[in-house]
Amino acid sequence: MVQPKKYAVIGTGAIGGYYGAKLARAGFDVSFLFHRDYEFVREHGLQVDSVAGSFLLRPVRAFASTADIGPCDVVLVALKTVNNHLLKTLLPPLLKEDTLVVLIQNGIGVEEDVQRDFPDVALAAGLAFICCAKTEPGRVDHQCYGSINIGNYSCRDEGRIASLVADLRTAGIEAHEVEYREARWKKAVWNMPFNGMTVLLSAQTDSLLRQPDTRRLIYEQMLEIARTADRLGVRHVDAHFADRMIETTLEMTPYSPSMKLDFEFGRPMEIYYLYTRPLEIARQAGTPMPKLEMLEAGLKFLSQRRGEGRNAE
Amino acid sequence: MVQPKKYAVIGTGAIGGYYGAKLARAGFDVSFLFHRDYEFVREHGLQVDSVAGSFLLRPVRAFASTADIGPCDVVLVALKTVNNHLLKTLLPPLLKEDTLVVLIQNGIGVEEDVQRDFPDVALAAGLAFICCAKTEPGRVDHQCYGSINIGNYSCRDEGRIASLVADLRTAGIEAHEVEYREARWKKAVWNMPFNGMTVLLSAQTDSLLRQPDTRRLIYEQMLEIARTADRLGVRHVDAHFADRMIETTLEMTPYSPSMKLDFEFGRPMEIYYLYTRPLEIARQAGTPMPKLEMLEAGLKFLSQRRGEGRNAE
Repeated sequence: MVQPKKYAVIGTGAIGGYYGAKLARAGFDVSFLFHRDYEFVREHGLQVDSVAGSFLLRPVRAFASTADIGPCDVVLVALKTVNNHLLKTLLPPLLKEDTLVVLIQNGIGVEEDVQRDFPDVALAAGLAFICCAKTEPGRVDHQCYGSINIGNYSCRDEGRIASLVADLRTAGIEAHEVEYREARWKKAVWNMPFNGMTVLLSAQTDSLLRQPDTRRLIYEQMLEIARTADRLGVRHVDAHFADRMIETTLEMTPYSPSMKLDFEFGRPMEIYYLYTRPLEIARQAGTPMPKLEMLEAGLKFLSQRRGEGRNAE
Repeated sequence: MVQPKKYAVIGTGAIGGYYGAKLARAGFDVSFLFHRDYEFVREHGLQVDSVAGSFLLRPVRAFASTADIGPCDVVLVALKTVNNHLLKTLLPPLLKEDTLVVLIQNGIGVEEDVQRDFPDVALAAGLAFICCAKTEPGRVDHQCYGSINIGNYSCRDEGRIASLVADLRTAGIEAHEVEYREARWKKAVWNMPFNGMTVLLSAQTDSLLRQPDTRRLIYEQMLEIARTADRLGVRHVDAHFADRMIETTLEMTPYSPSMKLDFEFGRPMEIYYLYTRPLEIARQAGTPMPKLEMLEAGLKFLSQRRGEGRNAE
């Protein structure tokens, strides 16, 4: 079952840690790039506390530099997009002629920007539907869901995408290949309302949906995205899908999306690819998204005020 | 100079206290309805700390019931609109055939609703441009501005409006008669963005205008109101006026609008007349105001959560 394929995970936080550890546990050759946790993981391994079955991955092929990892067949990028400027130095040592780079990241426009810096690299999008968090060094807490959709952005060899999906499934991960733009815009339908609204109103998903005004507002924000997607010719991002996202979220346990955790822990928020970029695209398409524009402005204000406060300390 | 006219002030907070005390100090016959501060003001008088000259009004014609005040020529209503249901019992003892009732209140739709309950009463709107606050019992702190615009809603005798404006001027108050709808919608251009945004982002006017994203957002909210006003045929509520409101606010000292003070002190917020009602009117006119709808939903969420928290205590 195991392919003689070499994987690398860049950005081993909750998402990268979870999918990478699942692959490694299934016998795949997975090298992990660590930053702060490098020493800890080398010594103690990577613990995955998961509703789908907990396990300790040990030893871990842990590295502190991508130069030490060397060329790979598949690179899973699970950095926060606020750190994407690092890819210019992190990626080159990992690339060979047929490396597939999968951006498991939030937002709209990431592949376009990475492709500009690496015109010849085969890119795909990874859309993770998972509730997980890195709770302490070397420990991932996986609370619910766990599937991942792969959207081919610029890989000319469809077989490599299919092979990645097959590997993920071998590792016990629900994985599907989906049309690239549909995948990104569908994810945005959930991400854009819930990430920002939970930050702005200091709330979790459940209370926002329990209150009828914010529930309607979140639905209307989803419809703003659906209108833009429709104008762009992206399929299946419609009111029906928005209904499903509301229903799915109602079934979830109260949840703090990644941006809310980033805000609470004083980390930078992914405002650019989650809001600024899709809002620009929407305006250019002639379908501005005013409620989400309002959300973006509020988030930028909060982000800047926090930054100012920090500088003043 | 002094007319043999009888005034009453209902809702003697900062606004009612300021304008009423100025009139009384100029020699007009002004009766004040007090609630909590009745005993205090009877004993100590009403202190106005004002940039335009501080003074103590003492004795004060203070009353705990409008039945004790009796019929008046002019009633200045300075209640918060969240208490307008009280008018059904507070107003009748004050009314005679030609009583003019002036609603010095925030929002859109107040005159319409009061008129429904009192079909024969002559109503006018009072739009106060003033920074003031009630800092403790019997004490009004007047920080800047102080003018008031009077808009005739249903008074058939124009002379009574002119006479009120003349009295206010005699009392040293800058007062103007303005077209009713223009007055209300112009006030909304300032009130709607700044009241809600300062609550939602825990900020004062100055920081919202210093940050370019929230400044642009506030301007765009003002333009939403201008589009609705234009559709309704209300004059002079346009981009030029929005520019002026931004400029004026930049010149003000950092300011917390009344809704922010209400929120901070745990008092109900005037969401209905400040947001819900004008948003309804805008939708009916075919010019929805999406950014302000978003603001309304956020405020309702915060208001309800606070209420829930209180019930849970």
